[in-house]
Amino acid sequence: MFFASDNAGPAHPQVMQALMDANQGFALPYGADAIMDRVRARIREIFEAPDAAVYLVATGTAANSLALANMCQPFQTVFCSPVAHIHEDECNAPEFYSGGAKLTLVGDSDKMTADSLRAAIEAEETRGVHGPQRGPVSITQVTERGRIYSLQELSALTSVAREFGLQCHLDGARFANALVALGCTPAEMTWKAGIDAVSFGGTKNGCPGVEAVIFFNPERSWEFELRRKRGAHLFSKHRYLSAQMEAYLTDDLWLKSARAANANCRRLADGLAGVSGVALLHDPQANMIYADMPRAVHKRLQDGGAVYYLLAGDADAGDPNELLPCRMVTDWSISAAQIDQFVALAKG
Amino acid sequence: MFFASDNAGPAHPQVMQALMDANQGFALPYGADAIMDRVRARIREIFEAPDAAVYLVATGTAANSLALANMCQPFQTVFCSPVAHIHEDECNAPEFYSGGAKLTLVGDSDKMTADSLRAAIEAEETRGVHGPQRGPVSITQVTERGRIYSLQELSALTSVAREFGLQCHLDGARFANALVALGCTPAEMTWKAGIDAVSFGGTKNGCPGVEAVIFFNPERSWEFELRRKRGAHLFSKHRYLSAQMEAYLTDDLWLKSARAANANCRRLADGLAGVSGVALLHDPQANMIYADMPRAVHKRLQDGGAVYYLLAGDADAGDPNELLPCRMVTDWSISAAQIDQFVALAKG
Amino acid sequence: MFFASDNAGPAHPQVMQALMDANQGFALPYGADAIMDRVRARIREIFEAPDAAVYLVATGTAANSLALANMCQPFQTVFCSPVAHIHEDECNAPEFYSGGAKLTLVGDSDKMTADSLRAAIEAEETRGVHGPQRGPVSITQVTERGRIYSLQELSALTSVAREFGLQCHLDGARFANALVALGCTPAEMTWKAGIDAVSFGGTKNGCPGVEAVIFFNPERSWEFELRRKRGAHLFSKHRYLSAQMEAYLTDDLWLKSARAANANCRRLADGLAGVSGVALLHDPQANMIYADMPRAVHKRLQDGGAVYYLLAGDADAGDPNELLPCRMVTDWSISAAQIDQFVALAKG
Amino acid sequence: MFFASDNAGPAHPQVMQALMDANQGFALPYGADAIMDRVRARIREIFEAPDAAVYLVATGTAANSLALANMCQPFQTVFCSPVAHIHEDECNAPEFYSGGAKLTLVGDSDKMTADSLRAAIEAEETRGVHGPQRGPVSITQVTERGRIYSLQELSALTSVAREFGLQCHLDGARFANALVALGCTPAEMTWKAGIDAVSFGGTKNGCPGVEAVIFFNPERSWEFELRRKRGAHLFSKHRYLSAQMEAYLTDDLWLKSARAANANCRRLADGLAGVSGVALLHDPQANMIYADMPRAVHKRLQDGGAVYYLLAGDADAGDPNELLPCRMVTDWSISAAQIDQFVALAKG
Repeated sequence: MFFASDNAGPAHPQVMQALMDANQGFALPYGADAIMDRVRARIREIFEAPDAAVYLVATGTAANSLALANMCQPFQTVFCSPVAHIHEDECNAPEFYSGGAKLTLVGDSDKMTADSLRAAIEAEETRGVHGPQRGPVSITQVTERGRIYSLQELSALTSVAREFGLQCHLDGARFANALVALGCTPAEMTWKAGIDAVSFGGTKNGCPGVEAVIFFNPERSWEFELRRKRGAHLFSKHRYLSAQMEAYLTDDLWLKSARAANANCRRLADGLAGVSGVALLHDPQANMIYADMPRAVHKRLQDGGAVYYLLAGDADAGDPNELLPCRMVTDWSISAAQIDQFVALAKG
Repeated sequence: MFFASDNAGPAHPQVMQALMDANQGFALPYGADAIMDRVRARIREIFEAPDAAVYLVATGTAANSLALANMCQPFQTVFCSPVAHIHEDECNAPEFYSGGAKLTLVGDSDKMTADSLRAAIEAEETRGVHGPQRGPVSITQVTERGRIYSLQELSALTSVAREFGLQCHLDGARFANALVALGCTPAEMTWKAGIDAVSFGGTKNGCPGVEAVIFFNPERSWEFELRRKRGAHLFSKHRYLSAQMEAYLTDDLWLKSARAANANCRRLADGLAGVSGVALLHDPQANMIYADMPRAVHKRLQDGGAVYYLLAGDADAGDPNELLPCRMVTDWSISAAQIDQFVALAKG
Repeated sequence: MFFASDNAGPAHPQVMQALMDANQGFALPYGADAIMDRVRARIREIFEAPDAAVYLVATGTAANSLALANMCQPFQTVFCSPVAHIHEDECNAPEFYSGGAKLTLVGDSDKMTADSLRAAIEAEETRGVHGPQRGPVSITQVTERGRIYSLQELSALTSVAREFGLQCHLDGARFANALVALGCTPAEMTWKAGIDAVSFGGTKNGCPGVEAVIFFNPERSWEFELRRKRGAHLFSKHRYLSAQMEAYLTDDLWLKSARAANANCRRLADGLAGVSGVALLHDPQANMIYADMPRAVHKRLQDGGAVYYLLAGDADAGDPNELLPCRMVTDWSISAAQIDQFVALAKG
Repeated sequence: MFFASDNAGPAHPQVMQALMDANQGFALPYGADAIMDRVRARIREIFEAPDAAVYLVATGTAANSLALANMCQPFQTVFCSPVAHIHEDECNAPEFYSGGAKLTLVGDSDKMTADSLRAAIEAEETRGVHGPQRGPVSITQVTERGRIYSLQELSALTSVAREFGLQCHLDGARFANALVALGCTPAEMTWKAGIDAVSFGGTKNGCPGVEAVIFFNPERSWEFELRRKRGAHLFSKHRYLSAQMEAYLTDDLWLKSARAANANCRRLADGLAGVSGVALLHDPQANMIYADMPRAVHKRLQDGGAVYYLLAGDADAGDPNELLPCRMVTDWSISAAQIDQFVALAKG
């Protein structure tokens, strides 16, 4: 009963098999492997972007930091939500990779709005050379609270950015989860909505560790390659990244896994709806739930061996009716039985 | 017939099997997996270093850059050979990770000597606050020209460093190749010889992509963990790094693979000794040969499909007797038949 | 009628004379000049801190950035007010000098409180290696809105910091203005109140360009010297910095100038109190006023040649009664006549 | 008898007087002062470069580091002499300001040649993404050994750079000393010879502390302004930089001072020619001499109170005839009497 994160489940067997299949003979290193040629072509096809620059790295933080560093000067600031992964969970990696750029926090929730973004951008320019200069906007889809920007919301954000001449980055660590929820195409959720670069996640959705960075305008792609190498993120035996991504994109595995993860979350939410005292922060849209639950519920779950993030307080000590916040995440691999067992424990 | 690098061959089947075996159920992320506990214990055992701090990353450049950044202040300089990987092949990664430290090139060959190191260190301190300050010494074992420092040579270097209060890092991308050539213990080649930190390579010797960073003094290990995270080199699904390293260290696979690679190189060298006009830069000590070969030999090899690094000139155009330098590397996987075919082609 | 900033007035004649006096013969460069010896001794005496490390730089941004970089690791975050100079007015200099540290904004005003600081610090540590680590607290005295922390308020902030093992930096660009307002000793406003390092400003209070950085614990002072040199802030002809600071500290010039500046501000505030529709954001405590004034007042002032910061809107177009915010700053040099002329213009 | 450096003498009285004259009333801060407008126009006139971007900073290291950072990406390398100030005397400031670029040392003397430069550039590009990329060439004029590049030599270097698409920076800390020695125009020694950016020194030639950075192509000048601010090198009370530079350029003061300094050096060299056992490294071309002198000569000089850099050895202990290397520098202010006294001491 592991609901702590979608980074702890097993990789999909098809992805693992692809690793085994790739392990034959010699292959050119550093991204010159033949599998990468196919991956590049496939991603361009999926995104309807024949000129896109496509690169693979092994971690989401690498994808975000390198992409942003390529879009941002050290005297600029990146606009993002105050709970963005790049702000809260990367130990200053964006600041490191950009050479000391700043992050400007937009609004006070996981979702930026056109208004909050505009206000933040406008506030950032009254000081000429003295203040940080306006840099790219980074949008997290799925957000860090499990919500999804609609295509209209995305376009509204990128339109504001465009007004000020700013580029837009999409942190798509859970790209597939959002895509299947919206039921749109990758192009619609990215460049057609005004996105310039994407961190396209594989790790949280069934791969051991691979993320693609996609630039729809390849103009500065050579610089990206140098930044990736300098950041020590260029794999010599690159085929093992390529093979993961190829399998992930084959036979819609990425979409199927995301649908499974989202459905698991829905099942969990439906089950928790029947537990007295449990209040979800948002109706689940992808594969992540934030909820307040009575301490007694937490205690039953933890005593029963369920693993998830209790965000504040102690399940063991205090008023059993006090509500304590928590986070639960489902990946593709968790079984209906485990979910039902979790819910049963919660009910007591 | 791929002799270009030991980073292009397949991973060892036992390592791949370990990846498959690790792919069961949930595992704690970010290095808290149970396999990593065993890897840590095993490395401490192998190195006879019960207090060592042990970390895994996926690339050799990450291992080197992060280790050095943890040992070096941005106003210092790292002492290394002019052909060190950290200087020539990492696109300024050490400068990046250290926040702008310098590299001071010692002597004019792949091997530093006590004298050349002392001269370089002494030259670096006549300027007080104006010049870069003396920082760690980084020693490459196997060197970038395929040679090996004897234990006496290592101790001589670290003794000089110690005189000046400087720490020593060992770039062991080919650690195992050196170890089996010297026939010593890991402890003898590292901390007993005065080494403070090691980049312990797995990738060039049969793993898809894993390197350990080992600090014999764990005092600043928390800082290393933060630097690794900030550098985007902390894997969420860390078990797939752990599993590689565990398999690598099981049943002496790392030693067996290194012995095979070195033996392959010896077979290649012995074969080339019979080719007229071929002159090896050094007698092979590990798994890498630098040689001058007549253009006609290169032409035959390349026409026959052999892949290796021609370091200057053009095999196709010019005096057939002109000597052109090249590099050949053997890994554990290359077959005797391929080596013999290569030699036969060279002979013409 | 220049009320835009205290960085635009002339230097005090005594300071200029000291520059002339210092211009005799040869003097050892790079801070080894005899005047610096006297400055160091004098600052230690003034601050009752015989062991303090004392350095001079030419700009306030250099003082802040270098001091913070010496107190902060690149994977940490600095706690400060959202309107702190280090956040809003230094074009990412702290991020640059620290190698990519973050700034965490505390509360929503120019003054941090013990509660808002505690909340910010506590919020920054639930993520282990993933989030930025807690770094130093930077307190601006006089604040960027012209207010002053009482000694009790300072101690409350530093006590919170100390609980978490964090150091405290005081941005004292207007140190003297605060000191004379509080009527306390330099020691009381700094180390006795828990401050570890001070940016001690001279430029805004009568010097052409000099600031001292003072560390009460000199343990890492050599590192500071290297950071200053590496930041290109070590002056070869250092005597011209020393001479400014010596004159500034002689015969209480620094205190007299600050008293004059504060008194000028009081005169201005008293005058504006008689102008219909003018509302001061705070009662003036030092030498800076934020106020809302009717557009018609702004128009009369600007037409009359007064210079100050209109923070929003346009004096020329719109409802004459609409209130527009502005900032006015007084230095020691502005005359009573100019202030009275300004007030007269405002009254219309 | 101070011959240690040209950074220790007094400022020229005309420059000091200009500081006093500038100290009247209010002046717009941050480079918007009226004096700076005149300085900008005057430098454009002197350099016959009406579009040049012109900025002032206070130290030579700031000028060099900021100029190079604006011309260089962090994954590139700067080509320079192994004794260049940017390599030996700036405590890694260029690495810091560039975000971690490397310096590639060209040849083995203070003067690069077209051949040594070409060899260094060519050697730097056989590694694609793996090695540092070629960045700007930085030429020191006067060199750190007191020699001067002829216009032909400068053009030869910049032609090589141009072949590879690289920009050229001139470290002109002693620009005027070289100019008067060559008897050419500023344009001839810079953009007409292929130089793209200049650090134009004032500090070593009679100013308290001011250097201009000049870009002949102003395309990236806004970026420079941001880098200067972020580096904490933008002065609020900028008029005191402007005034120095204006006086320096008025009535040919800069040229007269340089001629005086060079003539003083010639007088010193001529005097030393009569001292038995003294051997100059080069015939003096500007205001700096490197020489080998017998220990007995050093002892007489030091006992007599002469100050200069003894580069190795101890004047007091050892064979009186042993030659010890030293450096002597003359500025405009040193008197003929002092020089003659120095020579007399040397003669014994």
